[in-house]
Amino acid sequence: MSNLKRVKGGVCAARGFLASATYCGIRPLNRGHADLAMVYSQYSSLAAGVFTTNQVKAAPVKLSIEHIRSRTARAVILNSGNANACTGDQGYRDALLLVEETAHLLGLRRQQVLACSTGCIGIPLPMEKIRPRLKSLVQTLSQTGNQAAAQAIMTSDTHPKEAARELQIGGIPVRLGGMAKGAGMIDPNMATMLCVVTTDIAVSSPSLLKALRKAVGDSFNHITVDGCMSTNDTVIILANGAARAPLVRPNSAEFTLFLEALCSVCKELAEMIVLDGEGTSKFIEVEVQGARNNVEARSAAESVANSILLKCAWAGNNPSWGRIMDALGYSSARIQEERVDIFLNQLPMVIGGVAGPASFSSLGRVIASEAFRVSIHLNLGNGYYMALTTDLTEEYVRLNSKD
Amino acid sequence: MSNLKRVKGGVCAARGFLASATYCGIRPLNRGHADLAMVYSQYSSLAAGVFTTNQVKAAPVKLSIEHIRSRTARAVILNSGNANACTGDQGYRDALLLVEETAHLLGLRRQQVLACSTGCIGIPLPMEKIRPRLKSLVQTLSQTGNQAAAQAIMTSDTHPKEAARELQIGGIPVRLGGMAKGAGMIDPNMATMLCVVTTDIAVSSPSLLKALRKAVGDSFNHITVDGCMSTNDTVIILANGAARAPLVRPNSAEFTLFLEALCSVCKELAEMIVLDGEGTSKFIEVEVQGARNNVEARSAAESVANSILLKCAWAGNNPSWGRIMDALGYSSARIQEERVDIFLNQLPMVIGGVAGPASFSSLGRVIASEAFRVSIHLNLGNGYYMALTTDLTEEYVRLNSKD
Repeated sequence: MSNLKRVKGGVCAARGFLASATYCGIRPLNRGHADLAMVYSQYSSLAAGVFTTNQVKAAPVKLSIEHIRSRTARAVILNSGNANACTGDQGYRDALLLVEETAHLLGLRRQQVLACSTGCIGIPLPMEKIRPRLKSLVQTLSQTGNQAAAQAIMTSDTHPKEAARELQIGGIPVRLGGMAKGAGMIDPNMATMLCVVTTDIAVSSPSLLKALRKAVGDSFNHITVDGCMSTNDTVIILANGAARAPLVRPNSAEFTLFLEALCSVCKELAEMIVLDGEGTSKFIEVEVQGARNNVEARSAAESVANSILLKCAWAGNNPSWGRIMDALGYSSARIQEERVDIFLNQLPMVIGGVAGPASFSSLGRVIASEAFRVSIHLNLGNGYYMALTTDLTEEYVRLNSKD
Repeated sequence: MSNLKRVKGGVCAARGFLASATYCGIRPLNRGHADLAMVYSQYSSLAAGVFTTNQVKAAPVKLSIEHIRSRTARAVILNSGNANACTGDQGYRDALLLVEETAHLLGLRRQQVLACSTGCIGIPLPMEKIRPRLKSLVQTLSQTGNQAAAQAIMTSDTHPKEAARELQIGGIPVRLGGMAKGAGMIDPNMATMLCVVTTDIAVSSPSLLKALRKAVGDSFNHITVDGCMSTNDTVIILANGAARAPLVRPNSAEFTLFLEALCSVCKELAEMIVLDGEGTSKFIEVEVQGARNNVEARSAAESVANSILLKCAWAGNNPSWGRIMDALGYSSARIQEERVDIFLNQLPMVIGGVAGPASFSSLGRVIASEAFRVSIHLNLGNGYYMALTTDLTEEYVRLNSKD
């Protein structure tokens, strides 16, 4: 039985977590919001992370992967405006120095600090701007710093992204909350996407990683804006047990509750990311049913969700289903043209591989709305996948033709 | 020794080939140009074809694949404005009827006629508009009909695409010429791309197919505009031997000459297609050297050539090489970040995975030009591939948001 309650507070919703943010001027053309953030647990805490699968990994990603091997961490230092990717040995030394100084100021070992960066690739971090601000970042850590931190990690996001839940474990209220940034370069297997989740639940280390992987797989990995995977994607969870609820054991009913709450937070953040995609105007669910298996369902859904031609058609309110058939046909999923049915919300757009009975004008009305679902039935098996995507507007091109 | 000479005449450059075009009004919002074309050999001729690998194949593609099994064909009937794809049994019957009537009017068996369509998907062919025009199409077949035919197959192409060559086989001049249409949906493994090549060379049937596959592999399959593969892609070659030159035998010196000429025609047409991409403003060669093998080189080159973010950056004259590193990193090619060198024309943009010595302003000048080459050296082996692509403009989105 679910007992999830939405609460406020983002990364500070759970007990014992503080956050802060400050402005260093990392981005040459700044938008006036803070660009450096910190999340800190007042108590020792376990940590788990999921990182980009891109072979080109940013320096903070490499460093965090190393540090998280200990399965504990108490702080995360994050910056926007500079990805510290493709910056060579210097980039790694910069990330290390940042983490070391943060650890020193917080009285931690450096392995207890993780790092995230997002922004331009290939430009060294302006350490001379960041280092003088670390002290004040530590001094201003507070239980109400969550929104400032969520704002500081924004790049082309138009608003901060936070979500939190409260649930009961053994009759004791526990919390779980997070912040994320998204915008451009959003694709399955993450993207320029940072997310930090904190919880006061007590959970074993293997359960923590297992739950995070499952939640990321069911949320962030389903979203695609432009099919490009970033060098910096990171999802981190810190669990400090400060709620003093019973330990969540593997495969227990409590684990299921915890997992449900974590999925709920991650899905809410993932939807916010898609809805706030750079220069996009619509939120589109692409559902594939009846593929031969789930792998093929995913291939089919992503082929449709990533078709530039389709995304342009959606932007233009054009219910051009031929491009859906085309994208299905070149996916690696087996399809039989004459078995394909496609529904736009509930409207039968394609039946048996040819135009369905829905009228062009009724399809056009749905396509013109801000959110709709394309349900594709391949009628070959039980494979299922849902991809979340957006349209592709002239505004997208305008934004992304800059850096 | 090459003895290739450029000549005029497109599909009518070779002896014994006639072409014609007429206007039927297939496309509801017509641009005023013809939309139905025919190519005809006055003599019996061998035929070979390469067709889309999309699982969703248009009716004329299915029919042409059947007819070309006989390895002979004397006519091709082509239309723009309607793809006759996703039109079910009716679509196949329509394509068959069109081919049968054409064969009847020309005094051929129906298996000697091939069909190509391009345009909107999912709408039945307006047979009542096409059938009455077939007779006049046959009556107006002429040695100067090539350009009208090339024009009739255009969709959003801005100009007709023709190329032809003359060479010597056994001291006798022979010719080879073709027409193509491209524009949107251009991707390796073809795309909404039709091409008909004719030649008066005498060549054995296996050699004809072998040469065509190689030429398509080296030309059309290297181009990508938007990463979408179409349901209708077709490249057809007809060879009637009318020049009365010695038969080109497999693996002979003459075969090499013929192949060179065919590649030359196909590459010229492929470049025209990229340069005329819907709403694109630049022609970009993406070359990958030093991959572990050619397959990985292709994956790396296509990942870069298809990156929406990069294509937007190019449109904006932004020499943002971080997106190149990113696209390499998520390709299926093995890369080692610290070994990657990238040159923009001759300028060292990235050396050893980090920013190279070329100045931002010098890179910016190259990116602002209408054509440039991105040379990526992975330094891991001998794999090589060259992809041809374009930028992605707001105009592209505007055009493709319509049908």
